[in-house]
Amino acid sequence: MNIDMEAIGYIQSVFATPECGGRQPCIDGRLGQIIIYEKFMAGLEGLEAFSHIYALYYFHRQDDVTLQAQPCFDPTVKHGIFASRYSSRPNHIGMSILTVKEIRGNIIHCNDIDVVHGTPLLDIKPYVKQFDHMTNPVCGWYDHVDWDEVNKNKAC
Amino acid sequence: MNIDMEAIGYIQSVFATPECGGRQPCIDGRLGQIIIYEKFMAGLEGLEAFSHIYALYYFHRQDDVTLQAQPCFDPTVKHGIFASRYSSRPNHIGMSILTVKEIRGNIIHCNDIDVVHGTPLLDIKPYVKQFDHMTNPVCGWYDHVDWDEVNKNKAC
Repeated sequence: MNIDMEAIGYIQSVFATPECGGRQPCIDGRLGQIIIYEKFMAGLEGLEAFSHIYALYYFHRQDDVTLQAQPCFDPTVKHGIFASRYSSRPNHIGMSILTVKEIRGNIIHCNDIDVVHGTPLLDIKPYVKQFDHMTNPVCGWYDHVDWDEVNKNKAC
Repeated sequence: MNIDMEAIGYIQSVFATPECGGRQPCIDGRLGQIIIYEKFMAGLEGLEAFSHIYALYYFHRQDDVTLQAQPCFDPTVKHGIFASRYSSRPNHIGMSILTVKEIRGNIIHCNDIDVVHGTPLLDIKPYVKQFDHMTNPVCGWYDHVDWDEVNKNKAC
């Protein structure tokens, strides 16, 4: 089954290249903007009342697809691509939970953009605590990462 | 920009039609299975150590695209499609956070599938509390829903 999608907008960020990109919003995300194309702008109605959103986007600078990869948070071993957030995944869909600073017209200003400048946007969904807040989740290899160490080494 | 995707698998559920479908995993999700096509199976390595996953899928039974919709949780007013999880959205991407019961070969057994049987799967991502657990989120119109009432009226 082939599925065709189109960009509904794009993301402006301080990260010019993937090598220089942020790794997660909460780690090295920076101020940036989501630009929604005008034909989709009516879909933003009411979004200003949410503090957080999911941005779903397309890793357009990533050509490869791998099924096992070595994510930046664990340089010791490869993990299945579906057990990581790594970009070289089938369909190249990325997801970030972003903090909304302000919405003006068709522009969503966010505090913690972590993607490459120009990234095509596929969808925006509201973060809903009743659906999205899991109690005591178990998070595989991520539970063994030294997050203090990760936070010392910010992206450029 | 046109973006081509392919299904990496599909979802088996008790919900035969959209009208009979679940609304969210935590509300009326049921036991079901995610089937990963064999060529992508190596990507599951390590996923069994996670309690929760994001399933990203394609609302294949939804032909319409609307920019403002009346979601089932609020029958009083329309909301912007990007301020809701409603299915008739641009690109028709759906997202559910699911509880992993067991993984056997290419089959992920989940406790709380909320989608229609046969839904094409686009991606699986691990739920990572360090990235995905927002503190004190503000959730717009969802904060005014009577969740006790919603939970009384389960899907068929």
